Amino acid sequence: MSSQPRVDGRALDQLREVRITRNWLDHAEGSVLVEFGATRVLVAASVTEGVPRWRKGSGLGWVTAEYAMLPRATHDRSSRESVKGKIGGRTHEISRLIGRSLRAVVDYAALGENTIVLDCDVLQADGGTRTAAITGAYVALADAVEWLRGRNALAGEPLTDSVAAISVGVVGGTPMLDLAYTEDSGADVDLNVVMTGSGRFVEVQGTAEAEPFDRDLLNTLLDLGVAGCAELTTLQRAALDTEPAAR
Amino acid sequence: MSSQPRVDGRALDQLREVRITRNWLDHAEGSVLVEFGATRVLVAASVTEGVPRWRKGSGLGWVTAEYAMLPRATHDRSSRESVKGKIGGRTHEISRLIGRSLRAVVDYAALGENTIVLDCDVLQADGGTRTAAITGAYVALADAVEWLRGRNALAGEPLTDSVAAISVGVVGGTPMLDLAYTEDSGADVDLNVVMTGSGRFVEVQGTAEAEPFDRDLLNTLLDLGVAGCAELTTLQRAALDTEPAAR
Amino acid sequence: MSSQPRVDGRALDQLREVRITRNWLDHAEGSVLVEFGATRVLVAASVTEGVPRWRKGSGLGWVTAEYAMLPRATHDRSSRESVKGKIGGRTHEISRLIGRSLRAVVDYAALGENTIVLDCDVLQADGGTRTAAITGAYVALADAVEWLRGRNALAGEPLTDSVAAISVGVVGGTPMLDLAYTEDSGADVDLNVVMTGSGRFVEVQGTAEAEPFDRDLLNTLLDLGVAGCAELTTLQRAALDTEPAAR
Amino acid sequence: MSSQPRVDGRALDQLREVRITRNWLDHAEGSVLVEFGATRVLVAASVTEGVPRWRKGSGLGWVTAEYAMLPRATHDRSSRESVKGKIGGRTHEISRLIGRSLRAVVDYAALGENTIVLDCDVLQADGGTRTAAITGAYVALADAVEWLRGRNALAGEPLTDSVAAISVGVVGGTPMLDLAYTEDSGADVDLNVVMTGSGRFVEVQGTAEAEPFDRDLLNTLLDLGVAGCAELTTLQRAALDTEPAAR
Amino acid sequence: MSSQPRVDGRALDQLREVRITRNWLDHAEGSVLVEFGATRVLVAASVTEGVPRWRKGSGLGWVTAEYAMLPRATHDRSSRESVKGKIGGRTHEISRLIGRSLRAVVDYAALGENTIVLDCDVLQADGGTRTAAITGAYVALADAVEWLRGRNALAGEPLTDSVAAISVGVVGGTPMLDLAYTEDSGADVDLNVVMTGSGRFVEVQGTAEAEPFDRDLLNTLLDLGVAGCAELTTLQRAALDTEPAAR
Amino acid sequence: MSSQPRVDGRALDQLREVRITRNWLDHAEGSVLVEFGATRVLVAASVTEGVPRWRKGSGLGWVTAEYAMLPRATHDRSSRESVKGKIGGRTHEISRLIGRSLRAVVDYAALGENTIVLDCDVLQADGGTRTAAITGAYVALADAVEWLRGRNALAGEPLTDSVAAISVGVVGGTPMLDLAYTEDSGADVDLNVVMTGSGRFVEVQGTAEAEPFDRDLLNTLLDLGVAGCAELTTLQRAALDTEPAAR
Repeated sequence: MSSQPRVDGRALDQLREVRITRNWLDHAEGSVLVEFGATRVLVAASVTEGVPRWRKGSGLGWVTAEYAMLPRATHDRSSRESVKGKIGGRTHEISRLIGRSLRAVVDYAALGENTIVLDCDVLQADGGTRTAAITGAYVALADAVEWLRGRNALAGEPLTDSVAAISVGVVGGTPMLDLAYTEDSGADVDLNVVMTGSGRFVEVQGTAEAEPFDRDLLNTLLDLGVAGCAELTTLQRAALDTEPAAR
Repeated sequence: MSSQPRVDGRALDQLREVRITRNWLDHAEGSVLVEFGATRVLVAASVTEGVPRWRKGSGLGWVTAEYAMLPRATHDRSSRESVKGKIGGRTHEISRLIGRSLRAVVDYAALGENTIVLDCDVLQADGGTRTAAITGAYVALADAVEWLRGRNALAGEPLTDSVAAISVGVVGGTPMLDLAYTEDSGADVDLNVVMTGSGRFVEVQGTAEAEPFDRDLLNTLLDLGVAGCAELTTLQRAALDTEPAAR
Repeated sequence: MSSQPRVDGRALDQLREVRITRNWLDHAEGSVLVEFGATRVLVAASVTEGVPRWRKGSGLGWVTAEYAMLPRATHDRSSRESVKGKIGGRTHEISRLIGRSLRAVVDYAALGENTIVLDCDVLQADGGTRTAAITGAYVALADAVEWLRGRNALAGEPLTDSVAAISVGVVGGTPMLDLAYTEDSGADVDLNVVMTGSGRFVEVQGTAEAEPFDRDLLNTLLDLGVAGCAELTTLQRAALDTEPAAR
Repeated sequence: MSSQPRVDGRALDQLREVRITRNWLDHAEGSVLVEFGATRVLVAASVTEGVPRWRKGSGLGWVTAEYAMLPRATHDRSSRESVKGKIGGRTHEISRLIGRSLRAVVDYAALGENTIVLDCDVLQADGGTRTAAITGAYVALADAVEWLRGRNALAGEPLTDSVAAISVGVVGGTPMLDLAYTEDSGADVDLNVVMTGSGRFVEVQGTAEAEPFDRDLLNTLLDLGVAGCAELTTLQRAALDTEPAAR
Repeated sequence: MSSQPRVDGRALDQLREVRITRNWLDHAEGSVLVEFGATRVLVAASVTEGVPRWRKGSGLGWVTAEYAMLPRATHDRSSRESVKGKIGGRTHEISRLIGRSLRAVVDYAALGENTIVLDCDVLQADGGTRTAAITGAYVALADAVEWLRGRNALAGEPLTDSVAAISVGVVGGTPMLDLAYTEDSGADVDLNVVMTGSGRFVEVQGTAEAEPFDRDLLNTLLDLGVAGCAELTTLQRAALDTEPAAR
Repeated sequence: MSSQPRVDGRALDQLREVRITRNWLDHAEGSVLVEFGATRVLVAASVTEGVPRWRKGSGLGWVTAEYAMLPRATHDRSSRESVKGKIGGRTHEISRLIGRSLRAVVDYAALGENTIVLDCDVLQADGGTRTAAITGAYVALADAVEWLRGRNALAGEPLTDSVAAISVGVVGGTPMLDLAYTEDSGADVDLNVVMTGSGRFVEVQGTAEAEPFDRDLLNTLLDLGVAGCAELTTLQRAALDTEPAAR
């Protein structure tokens, strides 16, 4: 991959600056402020004993996620979904994606009958909010699992792998990694890749925003996404290996 | 691809019987009862002059879709979303997918300031409802476009291509095409492919239901999906070339 | 009653062509596609063991109904009630009418603590959707009761009678049976009659749409409705006496 | 009709004590506290210039109604529909009935492009709330029409007749007029009759609560209802002929 | 305090005519029609055995309130909250205020595991609806407590004191008591005072509608409010000492 | 005022550490992360040209506020209001309080027909979220006003004063300033004071949580609140005088 510069001077295969700040909150069993450039997502992992009713007595745990945006996360203020009285389709879709992505690396039997909810609230949006949310949520989930381990509430190791996500797209005919908002809004093709730390796919979601795409282009985009997720995996490990600063 | 038999005796790369019945409704400008085996989706295309407010005066048309299931489309009755007072995440997600898929083959300038809504109501569900809906909706859309043409309400040819969709999955370790419900509910990996008649991708949505997947498996699944969509394209053309029986 | 012709050539006391297709769905315990001319209603009977909480332990069963219209059942597309987030008054009113009508011929003790829900979804509307729904729902209910009998889940014969319904109206000063949409929308008086197979009234709902009516006219309309319901009773029996074709 | 006594000592064809208090509210253009025995409904008629959008420019007026119950109108407290966030089917059904009943005696052209909303709030319920509401709403409507006349805002006489309503039922095998709650809740058949002052029917709604009914019984019930409505018409006229006491 | 006259001729420190009519409803365990001049609020106290789930087994009772306005209580008709499908902020705020005010004089242990709901429905609004509601609700609560005492359902005296409320404001620079609507809508400062019969504060809510206020003015307003509440306490006692007229 | 220590070692009249970080967001016209100890509220001020419909053509501007909490701001996770589909009473009440408080220092004519919305989202809650929100919102509002001034969009100086807020309470019989969550949840009396920079009251909201209070105690609490608001005014000025660090 060449490195012809972009709006913000990045190479085509270069991530924005990624910051993962653990323990950003005092009450949550795990919490992360994750930043992909100007995109800033606050993730809180909440542990509760017990599982939803349909799962009771199974011996299995449960992991789910909710995604939302603050009204002024975006350039123009958008209405609150609580005020409108209903959740939009995009919010639903991303919440479900985050939940599925995390569940792909969870061993429910080892988790035992505990529930972990990952709240991913976008404080500021500049493209890639769902991929930042997944990447940060894994770290918050890992901290919540540690919290359970510290209480001897686990029946084994609930995390079978790590998981990270990145967006890839074609802008002005050129494939590139980790689109910022101005890039994303003008993209011809948009692909989100969710991968495990061991390099396997959890989700591949490619969309022709303006122009259907062929198999070769799909392969190029997947190559970019695979490399991006590998980098994020390294950053997640580094964050988890560091003792988080007390606030 | 070998052809080792499945629950219903199909080969691994074989579609269920596909039936596309045009003009199933009297009032709609286009309508199709599309069946993928026991999956049965009624699609109605409704044309209205004018476009949503945010698009007025642009000279461009609009195409959108709504997906829903009758309460007893499924094995067990599910509650009506109208009674619950809100639309579930899955419904939202599929409605958005159908809309995006159709818009990928629409030239809005040629459509002029007309709106076409595709209502996709699942009368009976046996797996693959979203892919059947997209495949049928294209045919209903084509009929609605003809209706507009008959009224000299078009500024050109609004359909730049056709679009069809199929599901692919890995069941018991084996990749196979067009999953029926019993196959789908036990699948390790689930991939929906939406393609144009000219063989390019509009959407690729792969999900690891139980087990993350590697690049080779993704390629095998894409091969199956590409071939399935090509077959559906042929069936769509045949349906559109036939004079529909008057009811 | 004379037989001066109508828009569609019918006599004043003549029903439209009535078709009752049983077993239109694979999953439901009873299902009927009922057609009164171009009006087409899909009825699914869903059996569940047990009854609502307020009825538990009584030894009595429960029967209820939900009515809805697909958005493009009508000439112009109407918004989905699930999207609007609330059910309209007309929908509520008809759902309640169907439920009451069926309950009038049910012996709850013989049904035992089982619940049967009748979903009546209008696929195409051309007047008389509520009367077609009631007439078809009785047949679906009878099939669902047979299904329970086949499982030895009944404490006796839950159906004390059959039930059917028809609309009658005054159009251009002339009383007539089974109004189609164009007739109904211009009617001065509209009367819906729900009757048992043994010829007694379950519901009589007469409304002066444009002009209050006197006792003589009410009697004329009731005569028409009584005869129409008797015909429908015969058609219901014929449908139930026939082995339904396997789809 | 014989006059064998009832729970409250009434004859079978006897109304409860009816009280119609005009001008119960200071702000409304017409208002009535109507009482049928212990049933107490407050009706407010609100006049606004202009009509709903779909009627603009037609030169025609509009009349509509909303019915609701205070939470403790009933023996046991029921939840507020505003708190539940949705209106129940019964509320919808009765609101629609009241609106239709009043519209049957309105000449929209004479009303001009004015809207009158009749709010019927049940302060205390003891059976017959819908018939009390209709009977009282006509009086409030008449006062609101006078208010408009006083402002020279009418194009003629908008009221073509008066309208009143009463319930009739079969209790313990005996037909009787104007059921109180304890009678109504045990009735086999329930019939609501809405009639004009000139003795023609606006609505006839008969329901077999426990037992289908034959034509003879229907005729007996209609006779009772016709006589009851005639009495109410007299009481409405008396109320309107009296100068209401200033509060 | 001087007594320079107001719009309605009252002295600055003078209440409007206050009427407290007990037992206005037949079903409720306590009920009051309370009037502050033209402001008319119907309060119903509903007793149910048992408490909300989060309080079960505590031995403690619960008291709560709901406030609402009829659509035509006001000069112009407002939409029903049940029709809008949600409760407005003002309604919520006042319901909470009434509940807190009453709970301040309740001994939950003496009440035992019983719940009392106070429904305060404004039939006509002319300023001071929340203070009239609190003042009347105390009387209805006292009657409901007597009803429980009569059934030997109490573990002691649940009412530790009485509670009453009044509004005070600054209009045209002049502090005055018990604002009517025309005064209230032009007030610079608005203060609601809720006090016990023994003269202590339960709530003090002062708001600068147009102009921030200083400590001296706050003291003047509090003096007015304290005196007003003392008068209301006397009127409450008088109402409770009188045998209510049977309706 | 003595200075006997509290749970966190503070004197009775001592604020928690207050941090006001301006420009915490990139898109908003004004933004502040305000912290009162562990309470952390993100305030975004959004400017839009124009005003709500009911204010159009008046030449006057508008200022409003929305308050909300992230689900895991609190010790235990609470459900999202967007998921529940309705806003709770507490949220409504605080949103209204913040809006009123800011409007008390705004000159609408000088603001011109511009709208400023203050979104106050509680990221972490440890008592005093409403007072922190008001205090921070004033600073964000001031920045938004500067932004408008920089675009020559003002007709004068829209801010007539500054505004700040603090809570005061009685815990274990002792009056104290700026209650943290553990103090607040056990308080006998709770008073929120909103004051202008010039030392006048905008809102005074005192509530007897457990015990009605007398005039002397009210005065003591007001003294504490007045001093606390004065300190906050100094901190607001300091924040606004500093050039905010670029993020």
